Amino acid sequence: MARITTVSVLGAGVLGSQIAFQAAYHGFEVTSYDISDKAVQAADSRLKAIMQAVRAQLPGATDEAVTAARGRITHTTELAEAAKADLVIEAVPENLELKQNVYTELGGLAPESTIFATNSSTLLPSDIAASTGRPDRFLALHFANQVWIRNTAEVMGTEQTDPAVYDAVVEFAGAIGMVPIQLHKEQPGYVLNSLLVPLLGAAAELLMRGVATPEDIDNTWRIATGAPNGPFEIYDVVGLRTPYEINKAGDEGNRLFAQYLKENYLDKGKLGMESGEGFYKYDERGKRI
Amino acid sequence: MARITTVSVLGAGVLGSQIAFQAAYHGFEVTSYDISDKAVQAADSRLKAIMQAVRAQLPGATDEAVTAARGRITHTTELAEAAKADLVIEAVPENLELKQNVYTELGGLAPESTIFATNSSTLLPSDIAASTGRPDRFLALHFANQVWIRNTAEVMGTEQTDPAVYDAVVEFAGAIGMVPIQLHKEQPGYVLNSLLVPLLGAAAELLMRGVATPEDIDNTWRIATGAPNGPFEIYDVVGLRTPYEINKAGDEGNRLFAQYLKENYLDKGKLGMESGEGFYKYDERGKRI
Repeated sequence: MARITTVSVLGAGVLGSQIAFQAAYHGFEVTSYDISDKAVQAADSRLKAIMQAVRAQLPGATDEAVTAARGRITHTTELAEAAKADLVIEAVPENLELKQNVYTELGGLAPESTIFATNSSTLLPSDIAASTGRPDRFLALHFANQVWIRNTAEVMGTEQTDPAVYDAVVEFAGAIGMVPIQLHKEQPGYVLNSLLVPLLGAAAELLMRGVATPEDIDNTWRIATGAPNGPFEIYDVVGLRTPYEINKAGDEGNRLFAQYLKENYLDKGKLGMESGEGFYKYDERGKRI
Repeated sequence: MARITTVSVLGAGVLGSQIAFQAAYHGFEVTSYDISDKAVQAADSRLKAIMQAVRAQLPGATDEAVTAARGRITHTTELAEAAKADLVIEAVPENLELKQNVYTELGGLAPESTIFATNSSTLLPSDIAASTGRPDRFLALHFANQVWIRNTAEVMGTEQTDPAVYDAVVEFAGAIGMVPIQLHKEQPGYVLNSLLVPLLGAAAELLMRGVATPEDIDNTWRIATGAPNGPFEIYDVVGLRTPYEINKAGDEGNRLFAQYLKENYLDKGKLGMESGEGFYKYDERGKRI
């Protein structure tokens, strides 16, 4: 299999822009696609913020390097243009029908050899594979927020994914500075959420049972494991809307916790770190106060 | 309630010796009890190792301070002597009948005002309370290995524990340099294991389903959460016998993992970090190789 040298990213939202920048930072020419000029303008501002964050947070990042990276990203609103790449990474909103439509259109425009990868965090690649028209050249490549420092790339194929395609994408992930996490079976939530959800759920259960406070639960976790954040700090970082949605769809205990989040936090505008308050309070720079 | 000023620790094993040293390091006169002269000799060696570890690992610890702390610990093989304290912390082996017998004897020897606290990690205080003869002055005070740096003290009473006794023990925990974790209900596993067991279980499930390797699972956890150790590194630190025992008593998935641990690790002498090999290999100083 030929090496991946040209990359497009579909969707220039939070993750899409970060993925585009990460590939460009590691020397790839990247086409960043979104549906409108307005979306492209928003992506431009987003990239400016990413450049600042990378300079501030990534050891060794220079002004020169981040500026050069930005220069390797070309925006387009033409899907046909974005389709012409060795690898197209799809990071459009988490809506199955939307994604299926994008893949159907993309499949008709892209060269036969192009590999498609979805960054979906909640759908399985097998939900989408058929709509690509090339299930053997399709898999999931999942990035986490703050790609430049939280640099895991979870690679998960379906039973139809060609192993050579899988290997090429693993190699590409390494080439753009990611630590490739190889999943050998489809797993809802990939590795990270398969671990994180049970931990966060156990913490919620301790809180809802009245066993201990978020502060004491977080203290225990930090001191005992050396981790920088306890579970309720992680809730705040993730944002409380996500656990609300997840727990709302769960069992009775989960639904009680969803209700608790809604009444005590969401309904009061306490959405977690992003809004300045969740289980804890934060200053404008996201530091706990 | 009078402040706790004198302390005894029953059992001079791994945790008992660490608890005795921690209290002595923070200025308390401590009586360390064990059943035989041989046990006392072993405790003396154990304290020497603790002194070295504290000097090496605790920021600001001086030779002078650790030597002075050692000087505040008196060994005894007479339970009657150990019973004369404001607080008796029991850290004898995890055997319900043994503990009950110790408390029955202790209850007959100690002043009425003496508070009893169990360091049990697997039993609930309500399993033991009746045998103390003073359920209102009895609770759990749970320490973690490497007390001087993993300085959580989980405080958990029963419904019969006098709130003033609970508060006095919380205050004592703070006075010996611990972060008191207040549990307001009895919770098997306290806070820490209530969080850790689900995380470790989820990691085991990913491994047993063939989703990913321990290395990739650990990489994901470390990178995504900033924690120093992934779940399989934690398994190795804890030692593989403990998860084997826990999983053996669990559901079908747990029992399969117990069997996996037995066949691939325990039967081959791979017990985790302590034996130099578990999921990973370690040098003599416990560093991964």
